[in-house]
Amino acid sequence: MSKAAADAVYDALVNNYGNPSSLHSKGLEAQHYVDAARRAAADSIGVNEREIFFTSGGTEANNTAVIGAALSRKRQGKRIVTTAVEHSSVIEACKYLESLGFEVVYLPVNSYGAVEISDLKEAVTQDTILVSVMYVNNETGTVQPVDKIARVIKRSGANALFHIDAVQAYGKLMFKNSRLGADMITFTAHKIHGPKGVGALYIKNGVRITPRLYGGMQQHKIRPGTEPAPAIAGFGAAIREIDYTNIDNIRSLNGYLRKQLEDIDGIVINSPENALEYILNFSVIGIRSETMLHYLAEKGIYVSSGSACAKGQPSYVLMAMGLSKDIADSAVRVSFSKHNTTADIDELIKALKDGINSLARKDSK
Amino acid sequence: MSKAAADAVYDALVNNYGNPSSLHSKGLEAQHYVDAARRAAADSIGVNEREIFFTSGGTEANNTAVIGAALSRKRQGKRIVTTAVEHSSVIEACKYLESLGFEVVYLPVNSYGAVEISDLKEAVTQDTILVSVMYVNNETGTVQPVDKIARVIKRSGANALFHIDAVQAYGKLMFKNSRLGADMITFTAHKIHGPKGVGALYIKNGVRITPRLYGGMQQHKIRPGTEPAPAIAGFGAAIREIDYTNIDNIRSLNGYLRKQLEDIDGIVINSPENALEYILNFSVIGIRSETMLHYLAEKGIYVSSGSACAKGQPSYVLMAMGLSKDIADSAVRVSFSKHNTTADIDELIKALKDGINSLARKDSK
Repeated sequence: MSKAAADAVYDALVNNYGNPSSLHSKGLEAQHYVDAARRAAADSIGVNEREIFFTSGGTEANNTAVIGAALSRKRQGKRIVTTAVEHSSVIEACKYLESLGFEVVYLPVNSYGAVEISDLKEAVTQDTILVSVMYVNNETGTVQPVDKIARVIKRSGANALFHIDAVQAYGKLMFKNSRLGADMITFTAHKIHGPKGVGALYIKNGVRITPRLYGGMQQHKIRPGTEPAPAIAGFGAAIREIDYTNIDNIRSLNGYLRKQLEDIDGIVINSPENALEYILNFSVIGIRSETMLHYLAEKGIYVSSGSACAKGQPSYVLMAMGLSKDIADSAVRVSFSKHNTTADIDELIKALKDGINSLARKDSK
Repeated sequence: MSKAAADAVYDALVNNYGNPSSLHSKGLEAQHYVDAARRAAADSIGVNEREIFFTSGGTEANNTAVIGAALSRKRQGKRIVTTAVEHSSVIEACKYLESLGFEVVYLPVNSYGAVEISDLKEAVTQDTILVSVMYVNNETGTVQPVDKIARVIKRSGANALFHIDAVQAYGKLMFKNSRLGADMITFTAHKIHGPKGVGALYIKNGVRITPRLYGGMQQHKIRPGTEPAPAIAGFGAAIREIDYTNIDNIRSLNGYLRKQLEDIDGIVINSPENALEYILNFSVIGIRSETMLHYLAEKGIYVSSGSACAKGQPSYVLMAMGLSKDIADSAVRVSFSKHNTTADIDELIKALKDGINSLARKDSK
């Protein structure tokens, strides 16, 4: 958590507790925070502040984009194209749409976890109304060719909206929407050292979607409800701290870890070479993810098995990449942050080696 | 804002920044906060903690209840009964349901803003699937006879769910659901000195609703998404500070204000005598709400014109009570808190009198 973001939250809680929608000056003060954060969010991806809608997080933003776009275009067509490796908030939203009669194509991915443009071309037919593809995969760091995907959609002649779930890319991989060409982009605060409970959805000016929530006049009724000014203030502070030059250090940490992992017997690396450097996914064959994760946590090392949102389920992302169930069941996902050092990696490597020695026997029942 | 709640938010942000859904111990620490707050929320209304679902606030909770219940029962019937004075997040959710083919009855209210039980009896037909009535009106403090409403529904023989929007009642009017008999109850943190951006929906064990959001495994998939552990921790702290004995002081402040307002020429009181004492609504005839509100704000007195969510619109609540447009246009809503004193009321009365003298001429164009 960013200190500046935490302080911004606290300051808004204690000193500027007004409701941004109130007409009086206490409300206006809170509105200033919200406006400043909205401008920061808009600037960070090169769009207009009127195109930014704050949500309660990535899940709500993805649901609003995917379900909202589909429902608003249901008279134009029923076909939606996405991938097999999206975050559960896109996959499950698509399954809900299938229950309403929409037809959803879940594109396969290659062994690197990336969508093949040829598959996409075939899938985007004239009656496609929505394409939703993530920018960076949360489990493997695989970067999808979102700019090429945007061009394919444009050339297809389909009147389809393009949504990018950029939760894992945002603040790490520099992007402006002028290059991406998306109609909607999801991003969230807690992946950039901001508070949990606030995210944002970019919706291109002129694009109409059916809201998920109905109520007051806030956010042009696209996302009504009292704005969580403190969390939004924290989001703004975290956005202002984004520093894309951090990636140089992350790249060298990632390379350092990867090199050492390659030398350990029984470890296979699942993230492709060209993945975003902030994530490195590997498997310790024969030791279940959860077992290794708890072993490492006891030593003060916090890693993930896959997606926290899928708590304990085997990774459908790794399975979609054609990896075996053994590999999926033993996956460990390391996420780097600007606070990590080489010493952290050394500790992790030592702990992994110790873990392999002491856990391997127990786990092979 | 409660200091304890703000501190709980900050502590969770800075010291316990784990994702409650992560499997490691840092995640478990965050989960402890969430669990403790869930227990506090459940205890506070006398229900089981498995029946509490955290949302991003009252708007999301009301939408989840109203739309979720209607969609899940659409094969049983299409009829929904609510009132003309609900919060916009219920009214607008109902309008959305009308666009999907549901039939919504908006019950009128009497001059006190309350629903007549005879109207309700007539409205709840056999094919009614949902009744949604607020406990305390946000603009006037009018208390609806929710326990009687529950009994009418039960006796009607309709297989209808009963939702209570208790946002304004919660923490002020002591209630336990064993007495109310609701299937769903909405309440929220920022009305009890907790942080904005977190609310709760009670859903009775066994009641199935269609979720508004789809995604990960959190909250039994009724409300997926990374839990905002810091805001939830703040919610929990605010719940633990609820003190129903505050109402004695509020009652005397309210009575003191009411008595003095009655002596001022040109002021009419809109809140009924038996309204919840935390809210007092009156009109300063001939001076537009917004004008008076800004005048008072300059003197450091922050009141509201009606609902912050309706920013600047004339009050449909007062209109439904049969009050004139002149009264609705000049309404001022005072909300009391445990921090208010008699001196605050004296200041308000003085400012109102000064305001009437200096504004009346300007405003009558």
